[in-house]
Amino acid sequence: MENKVLNFEHKLSLFDEHWTPKVIAEMNDYQFKIVKLQGDFVWRDHPDTDETFIVLDGRLRIEFRDGHVDVGKGETFVVPQGVEHKPRAEEAVKLLLIEPRGIVNTGDNAGELTAENDVWI
Amino acid sequence: MENKVLNFEHKLSLFDEHWTPKVIAEMNDYQFKIVKLQGDFVWRDHPDTDETFIVLDGRLRIEFRDGHVDVGKGETFVVPQGVEHKPRAEEAVKLLLIEPRGIVNTGDNAGELTAENDVWI
Repeated sequence: MENKVLNFEHKLSLFDEHWTPKVIAEMNDYQFKIVKLQGDFVWRDHPDTDETFIVLDGRLRIEFRDGHVDVGKGETFVVPQGVEHKPRAEEAVKLLLIEPRGIVNTGDNAGELTAENDVWI
Repeated sequence: MENKVLNFEHKLSLFDEHWTPKVIAEMNDYQFKIVKLQGDFVWRDHPDTDETFIVLDGRLRIEFRDGHVDVGKGETFVVPQGVEHKPRAEEAVKLLLIEPRGIVNTGDNAGELTAENDVWI
């Protein structure tokens, strides 16, 4: 099982592009995805599920319609089901996302930032 | 929502005891638990679910009936459903556990290391 020990830094070193989540592991029907962020994302929500952000490096702002939170390295935040949010990374952020299999990064707000889903690395 | 940004180091600083998982957040019906480990745990499995280990500090050995893996800081390992395993921490380990709500730390192998379940910090 040694090859199933996953090192976040190693996995993050394998790609450069932003806003393209890569699946690294699954737990039941949930996926662990790493992603690099820089700049502003789009507004989105996920009506049927919570979504967990764990910041591996940098500082992520998550904007809501009525405020925001800042999530730093070594911190986590669970975006509740149905809450509109917009990630924003003034400087580069490395993030671990945890959410059910099948969630597309831009939700219903498809556009140029929509990434292919279920891409493993 | 600022008070829902959770810092792992801060939460870990709030207790000293080993082998007593504390819930810090929930995502749907899953819980995020932090725990400090030192020494040998007991053999256990969880017949109905996978379980995710993310090592926040130190180096954790997970023994299986037919081998082991070592999981270091910044690494993760998903123990598959039904696989017997025994965590072992030669030196102190700080761990983030992710598993469905309701999972007791020692599984069916209750004993002196069985911790109260669903304790929040």
